[in-house]
Amino acid sequence: MAGNTFGKCFKIMTYGESHGSAIGVTIDGCPAGLLIDANGIQHDLDRRRPGQSNIVTQRKESDTAEILSGIFEGKTTGTPISLVIYNEDQKSKDYSHIADKYRPSHADFTYQQKFGHRDYRGGGRSSARETAARVAAGAIARSLMKTVGTEVFAYVSQVGHLTLDKLPHQIDPVEIDKNAVRCPDQATAAEMETFIKTVRKEGDTVGGVVTGVIKGCPVGLGAPAFDKLHADLGKAMLSINACKGFEYGSGFAGVSMRGSVHNDVFKKVHGQIKTESNHSGGIQGGISNGMDIYFRVAFKPVATLMKSQTSVDQTGEAVQIEGKGRHDPCVVPRAVAIVEAMAALVLADHFLIARGDIL
Amino acid sequence: MAGNTFGKCFKIMTYGESHGSAIGVTIDGCPAGLLIDANGIQHDLDRRRPGQSNIVTQRKESDTAEILSGIFEGKTTGTPISLVIYNEDQKSKDYSHIADKYRPSHADFTYQQKFGHRDYRGGGRSSARETAARVAAGAIARSLMKTVGTEVFAYVSQVGHLTLDKLPHQIDPVEIDKNAVRCPDQATAAEMETFIKTVRKEGDTVGGVVTGVIKGCPVGLGAPAFDKLHADLGKAMLSINACKGFEYGSGFAGVSMRGSVHNDVFKKVHGQIKTESNHSGGIQGGISNGMDIYFRVAFKPVATLMKSQTSVDQTGEAVQIEGKGRHDPCVVPRAVAIVEAMAALVLADHFLIARGDIL
Amino acid sequence: MAGNTFGKCFKIMTYGESHGSAIGVTIDGCPAGLLIDANGIQHDLDRRRPGQSNIVTQRKESDTAEILSGIFEGKTTGTPISLVIYNEDQKSKDYSHIADKYRPSHADFTYQQKFGHRDYRGGGRSSARETAARVAAGAIARSLMKTVGTEVFAYVSQVGHLTLDKLPHQIDPVEIDKNAVRCPDQATAAEMETFIKTVRKEGDTVGGVVTGVIKGCPVGLGAPAFDKLHADLGKAMLSINACKGFEYGSGFAGVSMRGSVHNDVFKKVHGQIKTESNHSGGIQGGISNGMDIYFRVAFKPVATLMKSQTSVDQTGEAVQIEGKGRHDPCVVPRAVAIVEAMAALVLADHFLIARGDIL
Amino acid sequence: MAGNTFGKCFKIMTYGESHGSAIGVTIDGCPAGLLIDANGIQHDLDRRRPGQSNIVTQRKESDTAEILSGIFEGKTTGTPISLVIYNEDQKSKDYSHIADKYRPSHADFTYQQKFGHRDYRGGGRSSARETAARVAAGAIARSLMKTVGTEVFAYVSQVGHLTLDKLPHQIDPVEIDKNAVRCPDQATAAEMETFIKTVRKEGDTVGGVVTGVIKGCPVGLGAPAFDKLHADLGKAMLSINACKGFEYGSGFAGVSMRGSVHNDVFKKVHGQIKTESNHSGGIQGGISNGMDIYFRVAFKPVATLMKSQTSVDQTGEAVQIEGKGRHDPCVVPRAVAIVEAMAALVLADHFLIARGDIL
Repeated sequence: MAGNTFGKCFKIMTYGESHGSAIGVTIDGCPAGLLIDANGIQHDLDRRRPGQSNIVTQRKESDTAEILSGIFEGKTTGTPISLVIYNEDQKSKDYSHIADKYRPSHADFTYQQKFGHRDYRGGGRSSARETAARVAAGAIARSLMKTVGTEVFAYVSQVGHLTLDKLPHQIDPVEIDKNAVRCPDQATAAEMETFIKTVRKEGDTVGGVVTGVIKGCPVGLGAPAFDKLHADLGKAMLSINACKGFEYGSGFAGVSMRGSVHNDVFKKVHGQIKTESNHSGGIQGGISNGMDIYFRVAFKPVATLMKSQTSVDQTGEAVQIEGKGRHDPCVVPRAVAIVEAMAALVLADHFLIARGDIL
Repeated sequence: MAGNTFGKCFKIMTYGESHGSAIGVTIDGCPAGLLIDANGIQHDLDRRRPGQSNIVTQRKESDTAEILSGIFEGKTTGTPISLVIYNEDQKSKDYSHIADKYRPSHADFTYQQKFGHRDYRGGGRSSARETAARVAAGAIARSLMKTVGTEVFAYVSQVGHLTLDKLPHQIDPVEIDKNAVRCPDQATAAEMETFIKTVRKEGDTVGGVVTGVIKGCPVGLGAPAFDKLHADLGKAMLSINACKGFEYGSGFAGVSMRGSVHNDVFKKVHGQIKTESNHSGGIQGGISNGMDIYFRVAFKPVATLMKSQTSVDQTGEAVQIEGKGRHDPCVVPRAVAIVEAMAALVLADHFLIARGDIL
Repeated sequence: MAGNTFGKCFKIMTYGESHGSAIGVTIDGCPAGLLIDANGIQHDLDRRRPGQSNIVTQRKESDTAEILSGIFEGKTTGTPISLVIYNEDQKSKDYSHIADKYRPSHADFTYQQKFGHRDYRGGGRSSARETAARVAAGAIARSLMKTVGTEVFAYVSQVGHLTLDKLPHQIDPVEIDKNAVRCPDQATAAEMETFIKTVRKEGDTVGGVVTGVIKGCPVGLGAPAFDKLHADLGKAMLSINACKGFEYGSGFAGVSMRGSVHNDVFKKVHGQIKTESNHSGGIQGGISNGMDIYFRVAFKPVATLMKSQTSVDQTGEAVQIEGKGRHDPCVVPRAVAIVEAMAALVLADHFLIARGDIL
Repeated sequence: MAGNTFGKCFKIMTYGESHGSAIGVTIDGCPAGLLIDANGIQHDLDRRRPGQSNIVTQRKESDTAEILSGIFEGKTTGTPISLVIYNEDQKSKDYSHIADKYRPSHADFTYQQKFGHRDYRGGGRSSARETAARVAAGAIARSLMKTVGTEVFAYVSQVGHLTLDKLPHQIDPVEIDKNAVRCPDQATAAEMETFIKTVRKEGDTVGGVVTGVIKGCPVGLGAPAFDKLHADLGKAMLSINACKGFEYGSGFAGVSMRGSVHNDVFKKVHGQIKTESNHSGGIQGGISNGMDIYFRVAFKPVATLMKSQTSVDQTGEAVQIEGKGRHDPCVVPRAVAIVEAMAALVLADHFLIARGDIL
């Protein structure tokens, strides 16, 4: 039983390898009647695309999504929506030199052990190229959530040791895409960009944190006991390549707070019940409470280095892995689009799931 | 569509409210032929049980699990295993005074909004009492994993600001249950215990961190792209009441490392391929690589305080919530058993899932 | 991966063996706010119960369902509903004489082969006793469907060679329970009853057909391409013990009709679009069209005979199986309640599934 | 929640409309290491293809499947296998004249009611064109089952009133494809072919029965209580367009047999436990017993006629539907490939499901 299916009601199945002929996704469960703007899908894909700036990989992919089904006269029909992105750059390189070697901190070893053989070209299915399909599907999920006023955005809040000194509610989303890093504070972004370039020059890589924010989430999304909204958001984020951690609301910092400080006091504001603080991160008992949802996603440094590394081959013999090719020195600028997509997919799923809540 | 079902191959469905007649779980998918020791189930339940020490809630529950099906002549038959725990303490208290009030940072408000009404007695289904069923099922999952040499243990590594100064590979699991906190360093445990008592005396509560460790995990568990082993571990942990964050391997700290330092170099040790460091936390590309798996789970301070708090009722009118009853000042000592159970459930599920990997 | 879970949105998991301590079911996904009448559950169970008439097994079971969770103040809360039925008759008999024998056309051989060992007491999990849990859950599904005006009933339309000479739309459901056979024509019922008694006297058994009817089904239930409404009804019925076939609408007889005769012509009736004939059986393209749904379910003769039969033991050696105990000579009188329950479960599931159809 | 996903371990998701740009399928869960022969996929598609003989629709589609992912160096990698079939004939016709009309016994009315709008071009998703994707996936499932010696074949056993006078065990599969009808008796096939042509000349259509046979099925497939092997086979067949009924083993005819005749007596043959008769149809208690599995699938007459029919439009006004285009007078010759594909998909799924049965 493989794990390339995500979601219960708004369900997606993705496919495709880094250097196969195509990657793609089918959405089974998008309600009928949703207006689809192909440009919206492309806009999100462009934010994840290689080659978009000088601090990301220069692999050449236009990442154009073709719609194969499910949309008629501009609207979803309630039947499966299939999106395909043909790989353009898949034959440009000879990967035979690493076919029997295990790159450190990649999935080469584990795929080989699990499946008995593997597509060694650029990591095959384990490549983050797979996430383009998620972004395409996420764009449709986002459209669905926009119909009920829900907005999802994400931004880079940390690169290596450099951290953004602003809280989620202080962010103006308009600032995010004004720089290549996707940090919504232009001064911090500039520092981060310089840092990334320095690291790259050293042939090295560095990690980062992406913060996600959901505004206007309907009250009542999330299905206890296991499918709590933050549990599904966490799984979604942790399933993104290179992700090492997830926290929401007060997160790990909340551990050292007292309950009397951490508790979010309810009050009536303009006839609606709100909380004064929001350490809950918009989710209580696993269910959205109408306040902003915010969460942080940790990404490790990219495993592919532009320097030589020691490793072993399939027989366990010591080998050198040469650093070459076109790789990201830091994933977070491109990961922003993926985090948004996965958040939108979780929301769309729970939005439909919640339709069964009450008689 | 509710979310009380967990797992795909080793699947559980739990039920029960804090003050209903019983809580329980059915396991659908445990392989036939597994020897079941009812004492093992009880042993795990006792570690989660109220009243087990003077730093946890004194609610009176013996938490005895009765096996209703699925086991014959001491072994699983391959049919569903049903475990029920009758509630003994469910009628001892009048909850009508909070029936229409929303306790801060509890699920009262969200359940009411989502379902239209709610079982207000002790939180009903949103109570952490629900996790006893998980622990019972987890004991059977643990037995299954023991047959392939996999051991799961967890311990308290932080209470409030107090942190344990040892890394996962330095822990001797024998030390964990030697104190009421379940911190495997006795001196740190004593400090933590004193601190918890101080906080309780103030009528307040505090958070903590539980670290989980899995030793002897078979290579190859975890199903990319979405059902990565750490993604399912993350979801499992985040689904536990009061959980605010999850990280594995280098986690959030890995963000500020360079790739050249973070990468785990492969080498051959006694004929087997191992990694020198283990920032990957035993999982690469979402698949176990045979090294120790370790992860950290953040728990917020308990929302129920022994002091009066301001809140609102269902109409939004301001009310006072009086602190009374028997509650935990800090959840982590009891959460240890829940973290272990959820980890065992994820492993058992992926152990069976992986059987379909290769022809 | 076991198969004791049914439904996607209105999901049930059943457990229990014929001679274990209890059987039961948990429903995960029943919407909140549904009024539950415990008498309604018992009423359906009583129609499936052993000992209810002199043409069914005389095993002694009161089949009383206890509600363990999910209902508060008379209404569903949206949390799992657990129903347990304790077995009363489980220790009355020694089954060791058949522990290593394979009864003909029972599941003894296949369970043994599949699971390595088996609960041989009265068939264990393979016993039709398991269906009591379905009936209990079905009663709640039926209540849910009644809120939208959908009625489900079933009746015996054939016993052995004796067939009821009435079409589904000619049936008055009030007539069904007026006789022990549950055939809605009293004269035919009397013939069937006499025939069943004759067969029983010979120590033999006979098969039958149950016809199911659904009136007032909302238009639009059923999810193409695979989860067509009739496909899920078919699976539900085929999963009942002893079922050998399922057909709906014109069924197998429709094969020899011409399209020009078989096609159901649309017309407007009192402002609503209806069909003149109903060979479609209320389902077109897998989706309910608002007309009556009707289907037929074939049950084979009961495998347990009151006469001696030749068989083999686990080593393949020839043995005699002696006929004894308390068994049904024909399952259909009791199967009526099971067919209704499974139909209600499918409808409740698709009723909730369909909530995601349109924006 | 849509229903375009089938299977649990060997899981497929299909997409595509009759006149959209493509139809296709993704398989999530095929084990790694399976040799894939693209010709085998094409061979099965050709047997379902339009235009293959003069008694089927003359729509022009080469139905060539392109493999987009999941196969590397001729073998499956354990990652999703995506197969796409581009539609070639999709723009040849103007469907606007039926855009607001409901064709009798088609899915036009129910799709419109369910989804609010529909793709009216050739039936859109409700067209049997969708089944080409199933056949492509089925070819891979068949390859998987061949590795354990399981063979699946199907044949036409009835067209209208004309029935094949041979039992499943008397069939030589080599005879099936020797005629356009796919009836394995050449004389009966000739009669059926003549009859189909007569019916077509009248502008009419007729139904038929396809019999499926599975030889060499491993003992132990099928997961009680709900996912019995025959229940999943039944659902699979009933989900095929135009299917009205399913029976296996003795089926509806078994109803009128006595238990003493119907029971299959076990005996030891060449050291293996077999049954003398096979009224069980190779499945007992929902689990395969190693004997041949056989079943019958009823298909109604094609709804599209080459004569004028009365119907209504969306407002309920009476309209005439003119018969034109290229349609099958009888679906069974092409349905043979679909029945085989669905059977293979069920077997592959249960083959993997059963891997979790025993410790």
